Amino acid sequence: MKRYKIIFSYDGSGFSGYQSQPGLRTIQTELETALQKINAGNHTPITSSGRTDKGVHALAQVAHFDLSITITTAKLKRALNSNLPEEIHVIKAEEVEDAFHARYDVKKKQYGYRINLGEYDPIRRNYIYQCNHSLSIEKMKQAILYLKGTHDFRAFVSESNTKENCIRTITKVGIRPIEQDIYEIIFEGTGFLKYQVRNMVGLLIKIGEGKKEPEEMLHVLESKDRSTGGKTAPAEGLYLRKVEYKNKGDAK
Amino acid sequence: MKRYKIIFSYDGSGFSGYQSQPGLRTIQTELETALQKINAGNHTPITSSGRTDKGVHALAQVAHFDLSITITTAKLKRALNSNLPEEIHVIKAEEVEDAFHARYDVKKKQYGYRINLGEYDPIRRNYIYQCNHSLSIEKMKQAILYLKGTHDFRAFVSESNTKENCIRTITKVGIRPIEQDIYEIIFEGTGFLKYQVRNMVGLLIKIGEGKKEPEEMLHVLESKDRSTGGKTAPAEGLYLRKVEYKNKGDAK
Repeated sequence: MKRYKIIFSYDGSGFSGYQSQPGLRTIQTELETALQKINAGNHTPITSSGRTDKGVHALAQVAHFDLSITITTAKLKRALNSNLPEEIHVIKAEEVEDAFHARYDVKKKQYGYRINLGEYDPIRRNYIYQCNHSLSIEKMKQAILYLKGTHDFRAFVSESNTKENCIRTITKVGIRPIEQDIYEIIFEGTGFLKYQVRNMVGLLIKIGEGKKEPEEMLHVLESKDRSTGGKTAPAEGLYLRKVEYKNKGDAK
Repeated sequence: MKRYKIIFSYDGSGFSGYQSQPGLRTIQTELETALQKINAGNHTPITSSGRTDKGVHALAQVAHFDLSITITTAKLKRALNSNLPEEIHVIKAEEVEDAFHARYDVKKKQYGYRINLGEYDPIRRNYIYQCNHSLSIEKMKQAILYLKGTHDFRAFVSESNTKENCIRTITKVGIRPIEQDIYEIIFEGTGFLKYQVRNMVGLLIKIGEGKKEPEEMLHVLESKDRSTGGKTAPAEGLYLRKVEYKNKGDAK
């Protein structure tokens, strides 16, 4: 058995999220179905860096799995891509040490959230959040700074998760224009909880709209109470941009 | 009766082209269905600057129609957008002179064809042509210059159309990078024939791949014979970018 790491992108709009669920179309199920065909018909479980929710996209998600067959990484990439639907694409396949684990060995993850403040674009309706209010990017830039560092992010976590340890570290935040009228909000950190990014973005938008002051971000964070936050921002704007690993993630 | 001009964008990937066809989902049918609801239940024919084929997109298509009701252009825009599917979006509605005609009064049209030379991007699979060969952009830039000017474009027209007058004028050509590994080929002219842009792009790609020299563009153009050209480039890369009008197209 050899362990492989793959880096892959997907259009989340046609899937019920990353994780396998009975009767639903998911990224994980598509990957495992393709792997089974390649791996001599054996069911081949795959472990990703983490889930993404329904409608969320990935530019560079990472996963590992073990194969009993012998195959070059170039052939593995080709075989996966020819067995996957056109919405999922393997960018790179590497052989890694047996100890590598795509979830436990994550050092940092980066998410981006894309917002269009201009005219609605039908071509990107599933790939960008359309905001029909004007936003003060300056106020959002002030507010987002409160999120940097190590905090208990309980106030930004879906209510069903509140027994979990919600202390996480955000190492980098930013809001940058990527095209005319289009902004991307960046969060990089050691890990993120379910809905955390979309809930933080929801409050940032409220602040950008002028409904709350930038300091509200600190108050909500300190409240550790989900009910004080904003709405969850829609899934279509969210992208898993990259996953960084400790040394074990390097190719063998 | 008042005449209105609309500028609208659409994602062509879910439609069987612009023009109404029995039993098929088309942009024109969707627009006329929405207009009928707005125009007191009256069937309201719409005339566009021209058709686009199945899978082709528009950033700024133009059309005209007459309404028997009285409505402000702001309300008309809102009413259309709330009755149209999310793949079609009216950017602007204007009242125009009765003599304005969206097809006959066209002065210039601009098309763009987008090609990705980098890694396949599942998010844009319907919005960009994925080219898995390297292309010499320099050779394509040499070849495209032969297309500028007034020519008989018979060699780039679908064979069923060959009885038509195929003399057209291309006023502007260009190939420019729009993102890393992504290029857009621009054609601006007085009018284009069915499949003309995609057939010209098909030969440009062949030249970019090194299968033909840039001068081949001139030979094919002069041959006036469709069978000498390249393949028709796929629809997903093509965008109607803008339509310019003689004075009558200005808002009233």
